[in-house]
Amino acid sequence: MRVYLAGPDVFLPDPLARAAALKAICARHGLTGISPLDDLPGGDPPAWEGLPEAFRIARRNEAHIAGCDALVANLTPFRGPSADAGTVFELGFMRALGRPVFGWSNAATPFAVRTRAAFPATQHADGTWRDAEGMLVEDFAPLGDNLMIDGAIAASGGVLVTRDLPRVAAWSSLDAFEACIQEAARRLSSAG
Amino acid sequence: MRVYLAGPDVFLPDPLARAAALKAICARHGLTGISPLDDLPGGDPPAWEGLPEAFRIARRNEAHIAGCDALVANLTPFRGPSADAGTVFELGFMRALGRPVFGWSNAATPFAVRTRAAFPATQHADGTWRDAEGMLVEDFAPLGDNLMIDGAIAASGGVLVTRDLPRVAAWSSLDAFEACIQEAARRLSSAG
Repeated sequence: MRVYLAGPDVFLPDPLARAAALKAICARHGLTGISPLDDLPGGDPPAWEGLPEAFRIARRNEAHIAGCDALVANLTPFRGPSADAGTVFELGFMRALGRPVFGWSNAATPFAVRTRAAFPATQHADGTWRDAEGMLVEDFAPLGDNLMIDGAIAASGGVLVTRDLPRVAAWSSLDAFEACIQEAARRLSSAG
Repeated sequence: MRVYLAGPDVFLPDPLARAAALKAICARHGLTGISPLDDLPGGDPPAWEGLPEAFRIARRNEAHIAGCDALVANLTPFRGPSADAGTVFELGFMRALGRPVFGWSNAATPFAVRTRAAFPATQHADGTWRDAEGMLVEDFAPLGDNLMIDGAIAASGGVLVTRDLPRVAAWSSLDAFEACIQEAARRLSSAG
């Protein structure tokens, strides 16, 4: 089973070493990890020639996802209360393909609590929390991120694995990842 | 043509009035705007009974998207340099269905510049910019957000319309939205 490894891990100082570490964990559990940094089998299609580099990367990632049986997303909060935007896009993409999506995060605090910590909010007379711009802070604790993300994981038969770690370990610990891969392997083999 | 109106507009103090305003603009250009706040035709399927409210909303939004011909996303930066996570998920979802995705934003500053303004970064010897956690700040100016988002819009035949407005107008001005809808109507009618 091929599993697409979505996440801001590609932004780490040594993204190839990280991809190798993630793939080794996948292999230990009988899965084939596919990194966004991998070449496409057969290389980029000729039709993409002339596309700007950023758009080629986007197309390649979409093709990688379409070629996988499931997606495992690093949902550790990235420059704000939510996960990395590219990762969230990819999770939505795979969800629309009808295949299982899984998530892992090195933050266990619910999204609503994280958001209110980063963007001071006030509780209004109707009970809703609103930020300084008047925008609602959704209060669906214990969800881990925006409801589309948690909803897709649940609906697709996936699981979200979190660990309550200090922020300094956000991009180093792979404990939640391995637990997520172990569970993904179990669910994918019983589904297949 | 039915167009799904993705965006954090649902978090505004009067989200129903906002949905009505967006739909009126769509109608003016011959499109039918579908809001996440709309009921599903026929109501929620019985199979969803017992789902927590957040998961019902997620399922309903997915069903709305699947029932539309295109998606128009409010990509105005939301609590960070990127767009709202739920909106980004939905854009990825529609992209995987192979239908056109459009974006509009009340911020015109490129994503890379916005990110470095919000998360002080330093330029390393190899020319890359990295934030305080050592994570790469992608430098694909003039992209408006993560490359998956701009890439999907371009690849699907959509367009991203931005306006350079002061932040105080972020959630009020509908000028970029109307320009986006006008262009979406033009492209959808010539494609259909």
